[in-house]
Amino acid sequence: MKVVALVGGVGGARFLLGVKAALGLPPVGPGGSGGSGGSPHEITAVVNVGDDIWLHGLRICPDLDTCMYTLGGGIDTERGWGLAGETWAVKQELAAYGADPDWFGLGDRDTATHLIRSRMLRAGYPLSAVTEALCDRWAPGVRLLPASDDRVETHVVVDDPQTGDRSAIHFQEWWVRHRAALPAHDIVSVGAEQAKAAPGVLDAIAAADVVLLGPSNPVVSIGTVLSVPGIRAALRATEAGVIGLSPIIAGAAVHGMADACLGAIGVRVSAEAVGVHYGSRRLSEDGVLDGWLIHTGDTADVPGVAVRAVPLLMSDEDTTAVMVRAAFDLAGVDVD
Amino acid sequence: MKVVALVGGVGGARFLLGVKAALGLPPVGPGGSGGSGGSPHEITAVVNVGDDIWLHGLRICPDLDTCMYTLGGGIDTERGWGLAGETWAVKQELAAYGADPDWFGLGDRDTATHLIRSRMLRAGYPLSAVTEALCDRWAPGVRLLPASDDRVETHVVVDDPQTGDRSAIHFQEWWVRHRAALPAHDIVSVGAEQAKAAPGVLDAIAAADVVLLGPSNPVVSIGTVLSVPGIRAALRATEAGVIGLSPIIAGAAVHGMADACLGAIGVRVSAEAVGVHYGSRRLSEDGVLDGWLIHTGDTADVPGVAVRAVPLLMSDEDTTAVMVRAAFDLAGVDVD
Repeated sequence: MKVVALVGGVGGARFLLGVKAALGLPPVGPGGSGGSGGSPHEITAVVNVGDDIWLHGLRICPDLDTCMYTLGGGIDTERGWGLAGETWAVKQELAAYGADPDWFGLGDRDTATHLIRSRMLRAGYPLSAVTEALCDRWAPGVRLLPASDDRVETHVVVDDPQTGDRSAIHFQEWWVRHRAALPAHDIVSVGAEQAKAAPGVLDAIAAADVVLLGPSNPVVSIGTVLSVPGIRAALRATEAGVIGLSPIIAGAAVHGMADACLGAIGVRVSAEAVGVHYGSRRLSEDGVLDGWLIHTGDTADVPGVAVRAVPLLMSDEDTTAVMVRAAFDLAGVDVD
Repeated sequence: MKVVALVGGVGGARFLLGVKAALGLPPVGPGGSGGSGGSPHEITAVVNVGDDIWLHGLRICPDLDTCMYTLGGGIDTERGWGLAGETWAVKQELAAYGADPDWFGLGDRDTATHLIRSRMLRAGYPLSAVTEALCDRWAPGVRLLPASDDRVETHVVVDDPQTGDRSAIHFQEWWVRHRAALPAHDIVSVGAEQAKAAPGVLDAIAAADVVLLGPSNPVVSIGTVLSVPGIRAALRATEAGVIGLSPIIAGAAVHGMADACLGAIGVRVSAEAVGVHYGSRRLSEDGVLDGWLIHTGDTADVPGVAVRAVPLLMSDEDTTAVMVRAAFDLAGVDVD
C-alpha cells in the first residue's frame, strides 16, 4: 500500500510512527519499501519546510530533522525535538561571542546535520537530495520529501515589541523566541507563489492509495505545505481518498500553539472550523478532504466530508496506529 | 615601542607570550596599546594563513586561532591548540554521517569560532576584519593581522599513497592526516602570486621599531608569510632592525615537523642553513635579516647578518622574554 502523509515536526513525526505501526512495520528504523525493510508498503511523508531558517550560516530544517531523528531512533524523546544525548557547547560559545540570534536551541550533535546540509546546499544540491543523503544514515523507513526545494518560509506579522511598528518576523523567531506570545496579525508563506513542489511530491500524491493530512498545525505546517503551488491541485486530483486528522481536541490545540496561528488567519479553534477550513474536495472549490477524523466527544459538520470521531491522542505508537487505521478505514482502503 | 612579529601557530603563539612579557605586559589578556591595556607598547603579529582551510563548509584558520586563544587565555595548554574544556560531539556526528574529511580535530567550542568567521566571510567581510571582530571577545593584547586577506594556501607535493601519482595536497592533510610522514617533493604557496598583504601589514612593518621573525616553521609559517607579495620588500625597506630566531636547535626542529618541510625545499636542517635561507638584507638580493639568534652551543655563519647565541627554548614566558630581549638588543633597541 502506498501512503502519503502531509506533516509538520514533532506531532507529524509521532504521527508517522503510528503510520508505520498501522502497516505492521517497526516504527523506528528501516521499514517500508522506501527504506530497506522490504515491506510491500511505501510511506511518503511530505514535510513542511516553512520553519526552515538560516542561522549562523547553517540551514536548519526543524520539521525534516524532527521526522528524520524520530523515525531513525535518534530523537530526544523527552524534549520531542533534537538529538538524544545532546550537548550545547556551540550555542554557549556563540553566545560568548555575542552572536545573534541566541534564542535558538542549536545542539552540538545537531550542528553536524546542519553543517552537512549547508555544505551540500551551497554546492548546489537541492534540499530533497540533501534530505535523502542525510536519511542514508538515519534510515527512517519513510521517504521524507520536503514539500519544496525552494525557499518557502513562514513569516508572522506582529507589532515589533521595541518600536511598535508592524513587521513580519520569521516563524522561528515568533515561535521559539517569543513563544507565540506576540499577537499575530497574519501568517504568510514567503516565496510560496514562486515555489515548486519538490521532485516526487506530486507523483507520490497521484500514485497514492490513501493520503493523510496529519494532525499537525493546520496553518504553519499543513497550511504551508498546501501553499506550494501544485500540491493542493494534486490532492484534489488524486484517485486516493484524502483523510485529515484534527489537531484540535475539545476546542484546544493538542501540540504546540496552533490556537494562536488559527486566530491569525481568522479560523476558530475547533475541530469543525479546521475541517471546514480544509474543505471538501467534492463541494468546495479548493477543498482537499474526503474524510475528517475528530476526537471522541467532539462534533463537526463539514459539508461534503465524511466525519468520524475516534480517539486522537497520540500517547504511544499503538494508540496512534489505531487512529491511522481509522483513517484508512474512512478512506475505504484495506491494509491486509 | 612598536614591535612586529611574523609568526605561525603553536610556536608563534608561545613566542608572542614572550614578546608581551619582554615588554612588561601580562602575557595573557589585553596589554599593548593594540589591546585595551593602555601600555605605550604596540605589538603587531603578522600571522601565517597558509594552513587555513575550508572543511565542512567552515573556514578554519589554525594559526590565527591558536594565537588568539593562547593570548586570550582560552587555549588548551596541554595540547597547545584548540580550546580548553573542548568537546567533540560535532566531529563524532560528522563521522557518523561518513562526512569527509574525518581526520581534522574540529572541536565543538572551536566550531562556534568557525561559524562566526565563515558567516562573516560569506557576508563579504575580509579575514582581517573578521579576526578583529573575533578578537573583541578574546582581547589578545596583540594586534593579530592575517598575512593576507586573500586565499594563500600551502600545498605539499607528494606521491599519492593510493595511486602513486604525484599530486599536491593541502598542508593540513599532509600535516594532520599523514603526520608529515609522506615524503614531500615540494611545498608551494597556492594563490600567493595574486595575493596582497592584509590592510595594516605593510604599514606596521614600515613603522616598526623592531621586526622579529619568530621561531616558527621557516617554510610553511614564515615562508608562507614571506610569499605574500610586498611583505618581503617591506622587510627589506623598513628602518627597523629585522631579527630572526632560529627554530632549529642542535640540528633538529624544536616544534612540529619543520625538518620534513626544509628537506622539501632543499634547505639543510641547521640554524646556519635557515639563517642563510632567510639571508642578509645588506648582502643578499632578497634577504630579510639584520640579525640571527641561534641557540647556545649552536654555531652559524650567515654573511652580512649579526649572529648571536642565546638560550632559545621557550619553556615558559619568562624564558621566552629573555630571548626576545636578546633580539631587541641585537636590533639595537631599548625597551626601557
